[in-house]
Amino acid sequence: MRLSSSFLPTLKEDPAEAQIISHRLMLRTGMVRQMSSGIYAWLPLGLRVLDNISRIVREEQNAINAQEVLMPTLQSADLWKRSGRYDAYGPEMLRIVDRHKRDLLYGPTNEEMITDIFGQFIKSYKELPQLLYQIQWKFRDEIRPRFGVMRGREFYMKDGYSFDLNYEDAVVTYHKMMLSYLRTFQRIGVKAIPMLADTGPIGGDLSHEFIILAPTGESGIYFDSDFTEQNWLEMPVDINDKESLAAFFQRMTRFYAATDEKHDQNEWQKVPESRRCEGRGIEVGQIFYFGTKYTEAMNVSVIGPDSDKINPHMGSYGIGVSRLVGAIIESSHDDQGIIWPDAIAPFKAVIINLGLKNQACKDACEALYKMDQEQLLYDDRDERAGVKFADADLIGHPWQIIIGPRGIGNNVVEIKRRETGERMEVSIEQVMHYISSYQR
Amino acid sequence: MRLSSSFLPTLKEDPAEAQIISHRLMLRTGMVRQMSSGIYAWLPLGLRVLDNISRIVREEQNAINAQEVLMPTLQSADLWKRSGRYDAYGPEMLRIVDRHKRDLLYGPTNEEMITDIFGQFIKSYKELPQLLYQIQWKFRDEIRPRFGVMRGREFYMKDGYSFDLNYEDAVVTYHKMMLSYLRTFQRIGVKAIPMLADTGPIGGDLSHEFIILAPTGESGIYFDSDFTEQNWLEMPVDINDKESLAAFFQRMTRFYAATDEKHDQNEWQKVPESRRCEGRGIEVGQIFYFGTKYTEAMNVSVIGPDSDKINPHMGSYGIGVSRLVGAIIESSHDDQGIIWPDAIAPFKAVIINLGLKNQACKDACEALYKMDQEQLLYDDRDERAGVKFADADLIGHPWQIIIGPRGIGNNVVEIKRRETGERMEVSIEQVMHYISSYQR
Repeated sequence: MRLSSSFLPTLKEDPAEAQIISHRLMLRTGMVRQMSSGIYAWLPLGLRVLDNISRIVREEQNAINAQEVLMPTLQSADLWKRSGRYDAYGPEMLRIVDRHKRDLLYGPTNEEMITDIFGQFIKSYKELPQLLYQIQWKFRDEIRPRFGVMRGREFYMKDGYSFDLNYEDAVVTYHKMMLSYLRTFQRIGVKAIPMLADTGPIGGDLSHEFIILAPTGESGIYFDSDFTEQNWLEMPVDINDKESLAAFFQRMTRFYAATDEKHDQNEWQKVPESRRCEGRGIEVGQIFYFGTKYTEAMNVSVIGPDSDKINPHMGSYGIGVSRLVGAIIESSHDDQGIIWPDAIAPFKAVIINLGLKNQACKDACEALYKMDQEQLLYDDRDERAGVKFADADLIGHPWQIIIGPRGIGNNVVEIKRRETGERMEVSIEQVMHYISSYQR
Repeated sequence: MRLSSSFLPTLKEDPAEAQIISHRLMLRTGMVRQMSSGIYAWLPLGLRVLDNISRIVREEQNAINAQEVLMPTLQSADLWKRSGRYDAYGPEMLRIVDRHKRDLLYGPTNEEMITDIFGQFIKSYKELPQLLYQIQWKFRDEIRPRFGVMRGREFYMKDGYSFDLNYEDAVVTYHKMMLSYLRTFQRIGVKAIPMLADTGPIGGDLSHEFIILAPTGESGIYFDSDFTEQNWLEMPVDINDKESLAAFFQRMTRFYAATDEKHDQNEWQKVPESRRCEGRGIEVGQIFYFGTKYTEAMNVSVIGPDSDKINPHMGSYGIGVSRLVGAIIESSHDDQGIIWPDAIAPFKAVIINLGLKNQACKDACEALYKMDQEQLLYDDRDERAGVKFADADLIGHPWQIIIGPRGIGNNVVEIKRRETGERMEVSIEQVMHYISSYQR
């Protein structure tokens, strides 16, 4: 994209409304704009990040054979009366009355709707398991929306739901989803650590929150640093083999990790001291087994192997996609601005032309830009170099490709890695290859 | 996708609620399920079509340098009070009160919001033109929702908005968008004909509706059949050159095309008789120039070349993405079911195994399926051949790849083209290549 003809507006000054760094940086870089309290429009720069995260989430859901659906944002109140949650949910549920005086609501989550859909179509145990997900806008009428997209009212979320014949099968699905989540976050480029979470009145140990390390996080966390050394993408796990999944899960849960609510000093002492990490974290996902709660309440069953009616066992699996954008910035920035992980950066690199009046520089920029117009941002504005460098650091492109009269005479450009500040000289023919094959 | 482990449920019987064929077929094939009056969940089969259409729309918008944003579904009433439309809009606008008693609404369209966003960031004529679009859910509280997704309440729509310095520039943008729309519909594989539309009190001739030919259409249409012979994708038009765009537009408008409201018998008589086509059509898009209506009402201006304040000239450009799914089925089906255009079909082909107990057949199916698991549906169900053929015709995959014991001995599979019923024998190595390179 050419910056001069793009809708990529940055703000010169810090917006007064933003209390935390991610919110401030998202407004300053023109990623989002608040339209009402806790309701944001995503401008081109922010949408690119949101789309990049969604794509990875989707690919990793599909990789475990979860199937994508898309449910409407508005739901009938009747559906929630069947589960008993319509009255229980409280004022965070946005309740709506349509022109025919029917009660609707803006879905804050979709257990009821997916259970209803499942029940309409799936009639036999032979059709289990089922694993369905969507990425869709949701609404929670927070009493005090704050922290930008981290605690907005209208938010973008991946919510998945599983249906299994019994507890044992549901555990297998849970393990599979755990693997999918670890791989998703690793690909996105963030350290998200699963921590045991409260399962409430249902009990059991099948709920984990995924928490990103960030100094501004809402919870205190304790974890074994070896966890973050694991490579889940290359770990050989057969997702069609429950033993293989169980072995993976056991290996994963060997590492101590707990929020302060669940922290256990005795267990913590068993972690070698050099590996004990304490910090604060932001929740960006949760996976949860809850059994037959909704299938029983909504009277949804399948015919079992002995022709008996069986309420399937369910789990639900969320990733806060819009929240993640903020959380990643909280965990990855410096005084100059955002530092995007490569996989979700809005652009791979920005091209900065230092020789606006130099034809060779201009030609080199154009030639480079044409190599990947979709993934390169070309800062072709008539601005001082200092402004361009500051904006590049602020937006946080993983790479800056700096083209100036001196280097271009030798067929060389300078590249700067945003994360480390490292600078290198590379020939113009090699630069795209270098960037693409760079290993952190 | 393997059908046996997919959430691709078909209904055996025609649903009573559906009055028109597209609605009936979408329910029968399990593309959607109605969750409330005029509110649908998109199941995997339907979502694949919705995504395919969205992808083409997006690529063709990006090709004219329109930039994608994503605005929230809920809007503040205040925004609509600024334009004067809050009171004018009537009961189709879904009005909502949040927990703090603030008035919100579920956006039926976004002229106000985009004008506000534009006004916050764009201050100078030098930053014009701007062309922004989104693909997002919208809501219109129809008094009698009907015809399935064709007249639903919650619907998916591409809405684009342009800002130009003056009328002359706005016309250039209009021409560019016309080209983009013609290319979009051609790539989707439908004949959508632009017809002059009413511009209301603003006047001028800069509004076109895009209408798909279908016997169940709401309007009578008259057009020159030569229009549908044009290849807009290969027509050389320089989108950065206003003369080139104007020449294209002139060429396009040479062909007579009008709905019955705008039909002109005198002009119609000038079309050679053999080229006069009459029929009925369904509107699937509209493009519209409306000048300074919103920029004036909302007091949004830029600094012009002479340092004067100028209200930019706007246009808006819609494509009913979810509506298109229904409209395409209305225009492309037979007694057996849907006939998908290749570009938007949920799967390229279905693999039908006639030799369930034959190892060679099974191996051949598996090998073929592995060539493109994402785009092939493998009907591996333990069902009679008749059931599989009927489902394949019903769902409307462009190709059926039929693998049976007799052919496989000779390394040959049968393929059937859904559109024509044509059958061919192809070697198993060649089948994917044959399908991909087939020209209608």
